[in-house]
This record gives sequence, structure tokens and C-alpha cells, in this order.
Amino acid sequence: MTLSELTHSTGEWLRGVGSYSDVVISSRIRLARNLASMPFLSTATVEERTNIYQTLAKAIGEVSNGSNALLIDIENAEAIDRHLLVERHLISRQHAVAEGSRGVSISPTETLALMINEEDHLRIQALRSGLQLEDAWSEVNEVDDKIGKNLTYAFDQQFGFLTVCPTNVGTGIRVSVMVHLPALKLTKEIERVDRAARDMRLAVRGMYGEGTEAVGDLYQISNQTTLGRHEEEIIDDFSGKIIPRIAEYELTARDSLAKHRGAQVDDKIWRAYGALANARCISSEETLNLLSAIRMGIHMGRLDLIDIPKLNEIFLFTQPAHMQKRHGAPLTGEERAVKRADYIRKQMVA
Amino acid sequence: MTLSELTHSTGEWLRGVGSYSDVVISSRIRLARNLASMPFLSTATVEERTNIYQTLAKAIGEVSNGSNALLIDIENAEAIDRHLLVERHLISRQHAVAEGSRGVSISPTETLALMINEEDHLRIQALRSGLQLEDAWSEVNEVDDKIGKNLTYAFDQQFGFLTVCPTNVGTGIRVSVMVHLPALKLTKEIERVDRAARDMRLAVRGMYGEGTEAVGDLYQISNQTTLGRHEEEIIDDFSGKIIPRIAEYELTARDSLAKHRGAQVDDKIWRAYGALANARCISSEETLNLLSAIRMGIHMGRLDLIDIPKLNEIFLFTQPAHMQKRHGAPLTGEERAVKRADYIRKQMVA
Repeated sequence: MTLSELTHSTGEWLRGVGSYSDVVISSRIRLARNLASMPFLSTATVEERTNIYQTLAKAIGEVSNGSNALLIDIENAEAIDRHLLVERHLISRQHAVAEGSRGVSISPTETLALMINEEDHLRIQALRSGLQLEDAWSEVNEVDDKIGKNLTYAFDQQFGFLTVCPTNVGTGIRVSVMVHLPALKLTKEIERVDRAARDMRLAVRGMYGEGTEAVGDLYQISNQTTLGRHEEEIIDDFSGKIIPRIAEYELTARDSLAKHRGAQVDDKIWRAYGALANARCISSEETLNLLSAIRMGIHMGRLDLIDIPKLNEIFLFTQPAHMQKRHGAPLTGEERAVKRADYIRKQMVA
Repeated sequence: MTLSELTHSTGEWLRGVGSYSDVVISSRIRLARNLASMPFLSTATVEERTNIYQTLAKAIGEVSNGSNALLIDIENAEAIDRHLLVERHLISRQHAVAEGSRGVSISPTETLALMINEEDHLRIQALRSGLQLEDAWSEVNEVDDKIGKNLTYAFDQQFGFLTVCPTNVGTGIRVSVMVHLPALKLTKEIERVDRAARDMRLAVRGMYGEGTEAVGDLYQISNQTTLGRHEEEIIDDFSGKIIPRIAEYELTARDSLAKHRGAQVDDKIWRAYGALANARCISSEETLNLLSAIRMGIHMGRLDLIDIPKLNEIFLFTQPAHMQKRHGAPLTGEERAVKRADYIRKQMVA
């Protein structure tokens, strides 16, 4: 597998299946781990950092033996490739722009990504479309066990797994679910979600995680702390209570819009379609916002000229790094805007 | 002929023909006349006003004998019909909302409209599409002569025809040309037209004349004073200098847009098309603004999914009074917005 091949598929997490797939885009679980034998990255020397990278790359190679996983040396990767991985949610923004020895190993279906030397020595992430946290958890857990057999993690009897950031200490688990809440945004009830999330000590973030704004009505809901709770407890909370409740809020808001503001909501949905099908230059952000309205329209049964897999293709392939990678050469923002519009138009009529 | 019949045709002035029809929408000439035997309306009693109405209605009936003209008693007309006539440029806004005895006589093709008891006792107006002022002038002039044979106009050897407003004293002529200047608006050069117009003592107004804002990039250019100049001189100025110059400004701006900002201009044109072809509720003003971009697109050869006659139909029929008159019952603003969008969508795909 090569990086370029990635630009022709949408990856597992955008397949549009899984529970509550009309609201939940994707589920993600990641574990934070550090090697007991090495200092945290915050204090490690350049040499130690390289050493950690090599140790973990080797260990990952052993456990993923024969699976055709792709190990990418992020330190020496081109900027465009690093951004491509961010757009595909395979590495964090921080990992893309940081310095020093670091990397990521990606499984062929992109369900699994192992970041080396991000904030912690190792971050094991599993991605799924829709609400499939149990599935993601079993993949992450299995990989964690395998690596843990060959290497010794920094672990404390009282606190659990030790991590750079105190919020990750304990199980080191972060559960993140990306939800699409256009109706709650339209009805201005999105604050209810925000408040409810705060009450439950959850973080609500934009599409690309920490410090990013919500565009396209996409929100990442994740746990803030891990200390003192079992992984399964946290996951059950998300799967059984938190996400279903948010999804029900959203679905109720959609029903209410359909019932009381049908013309306005159709207007929003169809104008978004009209803009995407006719624009001659368009930014990535506007594209995400218009796709949001269309996604809602499809799930509300009010627009059927395009389906979810096609929409997800447009969603992913129109982002800056994907645009340039598929084009095969760097593009200015203006060139991208024109090429993006051309690409979208072709998709809309196809 | 009845008023309802009017709602099914676009009228002569929106035929889209005539010189410079890619910039000039329509040409209008009107003469202001008052009866020598009666006081100006500013001082006339109710009885005198009624008397003027009857005298002029009779005189108009005689000169338009056999032409199937329609005389409308505006005082007793329904609000919707009065607004319909404003939208068709057959009476002024002032005439629609004023009080007291007043009316209008309209020729079957709507090229000729004679307002009784507007600001002056009589206003004779001829409308043409494109730049056809000579044609409009000969029609107005002929009617003026015919009526002048049977009635005596207020006339002064030194000043010429006497009118309520001093700016009309003299020939009593007002020449108005409606121009479409989207490219000058986009390139922000519209101020050049404004400045040039001021230098030439011309007025630049919105689509519905005095006191109205320019919507849809439509401007009415008209002479401010008539005293001391021959009618033909004023008309020649408009036909030979003023309007061709403005039209050339606009055409140059369009060429420049095509050359240097092709993608942006296509974007504007096609997004306008996408919005009109997909909206589920839309205001009259937004419709005019979107149609403006499409009109420009057609004339620039950048959009051919719709032609000018169809565009002019949408332009006229989507205005509030036309919407309601064609619907056959009053509609709230919200109902109109939905019906307008429905109507436009049908036209766009037909």
C-alpha cells in the first residue's frame, strides 16, 4: 500500500454504516501508552526520541506482520502527505506539524492507526463509521495486548498507565464520536448538547479535534478524563447513553423542522445542492457547510439526487491536501477553489 | 382587453429587442401636460379634479377611438390592480397610492399609457424595449398633437408648457432609459456612471423611478430639466451619446471581467442559476438580483440554459402583485415566497 492509493478511497470511517449512521459519522478509540524504559517526550533527548521511534516501529512491524500495514516516517514526509493524513483522521494536527522523529503505522483499511511519538510514545487508534465503539475497542485492545507482550509500558499500580497529560492517566483511553448536528444548529438547540456534555464531563470539539472550530455542523464528542473508570464503563456510557441521547435530540429537531418549517428546511437543503452543482469556485469550508445541509436532506428523505457514499467522497476528496495529492502538483488556494468546484460539479451530475 | 389579460404577457418593453438590448432594457418618454382652463392639482378642489378626469378621459377616448385601449379608474381600482400597473411600469408608484379622482389609459400592447391626474393633469408615456427613443417619441408626439387639437394646454410663450414641478416646465419631456449594469456594479465602476450622469445633469434612479433603490443592477437614467432645449435635442443626446457611452462602459467592464476574472464571474452567474433552479422560498428582491447575474451571463455567452424572453417572464411574473393576480387570491409574503420559488423552478427546467 502507498499513500497515493489512499486518495482514491474514502476509508472505513466514511462508509456511512453503523448504528445511528444518520447522525453519527464515525467512532474512534485511542489508547495512550509510554515505554517504561524511556523518558516522556517532554524531557527526552533527540537520541532518545529516535530510539523510541525505532523501538516502537519494530514492535509494530512484528505485531502487524503480514497485514500489509504502511509505516510512514512523518518527520521526513512531505507536508502534503502529512496534511493528507490529518484530513483522513489518521494522525492529529499536532503530529503533522511537530518536529523530530515520529511516525504512524496505518492498516490497509485505515481502521487502525498507530502514532509514534505524538504526545505520548504510542497512541493506538481504531476508527469505525457510525456508532461502533465496541468494534473499535476490541481492535485497539487486541493491538495493545500484543505490543504490551513484547514491550513494557509505563504503568503504576495506583494510577494505571502513565501519560504526559494528566487527563490521559489511568486507562489512557479517549473515546471520540463524530456527530452531525445540523438540525440542532438550525434550531439553535446546539447549546443544550454543549451544556449536557459539560455536565457529563465530556469535551465537544470541531472535526479535527482539539482547538478546531466546528465546520459543517460536525462535532466530536469525547471523554475528558480516564482515571478511576474502566474502559468498558466509558464505552458503554457512550454507546448506551450519551450518543443515543444526542442522536435522539438531533432526530427530534429534524422531525420538528420537517413538521413546522418544511419550506425553509427544503430551501436550505436544495439551495446547498444548487450551489454545489453550479459553483465555479468554492472553498473547502463552504463545501463542508453545503454538504452538511445535503447530508441532512438525504437523511430526512427530502433530497435523493445524491447518496451518502458519493457525498462522503466529495466530503473527503475536496479537502486541500486531497485536492493537491489527486492533482499531482501543488495548487494555490484559488486554483484549488476552481478545481474543487469542477470536481464537485462532475460528481453531482454523475 | 382586461387587466387580468395583462398578467399573461410581458408587454412590449420586455421583448428584449432594440439597440443595445444587451445593456438597455427599455426606453421611455413621457410628456407632462395641464389643461389651461383648470387649476393645477396642487390647488384644485375635489370637484375640479373630477372634472379634469372626465374631460381628459373623454378626450383620450376620442383620440384612441377603435384602438381597444383600456381606461382604468385608479381611484376605484383594487390595490392589487394598482400595484400590478406599477410593476408593469404603466403608472408611477405615486399614482398608485395617491388619493382622489385619477386614472390611466393603456394601449393593448402597453406601449402607450396616459395617466390622468398624476402630478400633472395629463402624462403621456410611451415605452419600448431596448434603445428605441425615436419610436417612443413619435408615438408620444402624435398622441400629444391629437389631444392638443381638442383641448387647450397650459402654455406660456416664454416658458413653454407649464407644469406643477419646475423641472418639467418647458417641453415637459422626460426621457428615461432603463439600463442593466451588473459588470459596472461588480467592478465598482458604477460610480463613474453616477458622476458622469451628474455632470450631464442626468438623474440615476432605481427601477421604479423616483425615490426607489436600484435592485437587480437596474438603473433608470433620465433628464433632470427640460427648459430651453428642444425635445429632439434631448432625445438625440440620449440615443447618440449618453446611452451608447454608458452601454460601452458596461460592455467594456464585461469584457474585462471575462478576461481577468472568468472563474469568479462564472461562479456568480452559475450560483445564481443554481439558487433559482433549487430554492424553495425566495423574495422578489433576491429574485431580481439573481436574475441580474443570469441576464449578464446570457449576454456574455456564459450561460445558455435559459433565454432572455423566458428570463423577462420570470422577472415580471415573480413580482408581488403579479404573483397574487395570477394566483387569483391574496397571498402572505411567506406564501408568495414559496409560490414564487415553485413557479421559478418550473420555468427553469421547462
